Amino acid sequence: MFERPHHGGNLGWAAEMAGCPAFSLLDFSASINPLGPPAAVLAAIESALPALHHYPDPQYVRLRQAIADYHHLPVDWILPGNGSAELLTLAGRTFAGLDCTYVVGPAFGDYGRSWRGAGAKLKTITWQVNQPWPWQKLRSLSEITDSITIQPQKRGLILNNPHNPSGTLLPREEILALLPHYQWVLLDEAFMDFLPPGEEQSLVSHLEEHPNLIILRSLTKFYRLPGLRLGYALGHPDILSQWQAWRDPWPVNVLAEAAAITCLEAEEFRQQVWQWLPPARTALQKDLASLPGLLPLASQANFLLVKTAIPAPELQQELLIKCQILIRDCLSFPELVQDFFRVAVRTVADNQKLTQALATVIATARS
Amino acid sequence: MFERPHHGGNLGWAAEMAGCPAFSLLDFSASINPLGPPAAVLAAIESALPALHHYPDPQYVRLRQAIADYHHLPVDWILPGNGSAELLTLAGRTFAGLDCTYVVGPAFGDYGRSWRGAGAKLKTITWQVNQPWPWQKLRSLSEITDSITIQPQKRGLILNNPHNPSGTLLPREEILALLPHYQWVLLDEAFMDFLPPGEEQSLVSHLEEHPNLIILRSLTKFYRLPGLRLGYALGHPDILSQWQAWRDPWPVNVLAEAAAITCLEAEEFRQQVWQWLPPARTALQKDLASLPGLLPLASQANFLLVKTAIPAPELQQELLIKCQILIRDCLSFPELVQDFFRVAVRTVADNQKLTQALATVIATARS
Repeated sequence: MFERPHHGGNLGWAAEMAGCPAFSLLDFSASINPLGPPAAVLAAIESALPALHHYPDPQYVRLRQAIADYHHLPVDWILPGNGSAELLTLAGRTFAGLDCTYVVGPAFGDYGRSWRGAGAKLKTITWQVNQPWPWQKLRSLSEITDSITIQPQKRGLILNNPHNPSGTLLPREEILALLPHYQWVLLDEAFMDFLPPGEEQSLVSHLEEHPNLIILRSLTKFYRLPGLRLGYALGHPDILSQWQAWRDPWPVNVLAEAAAITCLEAEEFRQQVWQWLPPARTALQKDLASLPGLLPLASQANFLLVKTAIPAPELQQELLIKCQILIRDCLSFPELVQDFFRVAVRTVADNQKLTQALATVIATARS
Repeated sequence: MFERPHHGGNLGWAAEMAGCPAFSLLDFSASINPLGPPAAVLAAIESALPALHHYPDPQYVRLRQAIADYHHLPVDWILPGNGSAELLTLAGRTFAGLDCTYVVGPAFGDYGRSWRGAGAKLKTITWQVNQPWPWQKLRSLSEITDSITIQPQKRGLILNNPHNPSGTLLPREEILALLPHYQWVLLDEAFMDFLPPGEEQSLVSHLEEHPNLIILRSLTKFYRLPGLRLGYALGHPDILSQWQAWRDPWPVNVLAEAAAITCLEAEEFRQQVWQWLPPARTALQKDLASLPGLLPLASQANFLLVKTAIPAPELQQELLIKCQILIRDCLSFPELVQDFFRVAVRTVADNQKLTQALATVIATARS
């Protein structure tokens, strides 16, 4: 018997609960773009198979140049990683040199994992997800219990933009104003690609003026390649060289490297995603809001956080057993627990299946 | 202009020196099995492409079960990694808790990299490669300068069997006798697969009696997949759980996972390798020994360490420029520097090309 997983992405437990193979599940729990991967990326992986008999280039010259061109940054400001999770592990070690790192909770669970693994202290600033973002608290930490004695040069900050699990997009200028208050700021932009050029709030273009800022990006969510593991860090060459010295020389395999380069060239695919997402998200939000006891929050990412009157684990279990549909419960977020669930925005047809299934399950529970 | 690399596997410098693309080089520098990869492994990678849109199983249940079956070990004694280099990085952190780790030099350079990265102390016991292995020194460390005050519970040992770069195979019983003298022993068996069942000297079958022993294995050399990154650690569940807590949850991507499972099933391929290697190695050794100024050491691995009267960097450069052949210089091994080079055993035809090219280059140098 599988235990209930502590995070998303573990389908074994869900498949057993649903009584079907994992690939038969309709998975709304992982926030992965349903339109990917681009066909050219799969072709690039196949073309790279003959390169498996060489070691990867330890300098990752081609990959770093591709990322540099995409973001208009010098190549030595770029460090590719085996998923952004590997880079988070390295970040934990840097932040372990500070007295404390602040993070707004609910927050992505892997921040806690990597900070604990490095022996770094992480303090959560609790945010009520239906209230405004706690900018004031983040600027004047003296208001926060216990932190009066921690000087700016001894404190760090993790921000996530757009924020997971809420889907809130944080304005660039507000984040810029926070940077001087912290020795190190880790900005996780894993979902920023889902925003089109006119709307994104990335700090990449401000990076070179702020050597205390490190940005993490992921290619796995937008390009639907979570099984491949590919992310990268953007930051000052001094800190990235330090990270490189802490880890093994070939973290990204040649297939992931080839895929990444092709992803960055996929401009047409990005246009398709930017056309699909806003109307699909609006429709799903509207449909969920029409169901009794559900309140989806506004989101600018490819997922929706939904407040529920019926406890989420109950809904989750019924959806699995009756409809082979998996939603993300929020038990791993102490600020949300059973009052919320999260769903990815999928294709219009899939989203309608979810809404219909939820309607049935809720009606049964209330009867 | 590329700098001369500090380790093997960086073909950019060599290709520039040779004036040809990297794929045109005849590469004897990386000790990779020329018979691989097995066709079934490439097919397994292609079949796994649709799985890229799921996260890897964070428990790696199928992969760990396949390794467990192969080695007749319980699954919780197994930790897969993104190449054994990733696992070395984690080992460095464990050994950083000791006063000192001993290693016999010349030694694989990545031990130094990972120990430095973790802030762990590494002390080299120098071995003259044409002398017997220093068993006595390893047993009675009081003979070693500086170490009198280091108690067994504060010292660690790295062993590599077969030993790289010499190709020496260490007898199982001698290693077993060392285990009680150290708090932790890391045994790198990256090349052990090249020995057939009757001749291998692995300690895997003794692992469960020795909770201070950690064994590293690699699939990239024997199955010719260095671009894929796949290795695993075998050891007591307590230490492997600690390593798991220190790192990210999905270090091995789904393509590498699928490839690994198929590698372990490739019994026919292993038989082919065991039939090819001994006669190919014997012939190459004999041919090299027939050239003036060259003295190849006896080896039981898939590479030969060769003493040379002409400085190795000079031979290396001439072979690159005149024949597009790359050999491994030993400048990164302080005990060997320019007096030795290392070559992989390749196919009989390739080995003859190497011998003929060396004959020409040596004749020119001596004329």
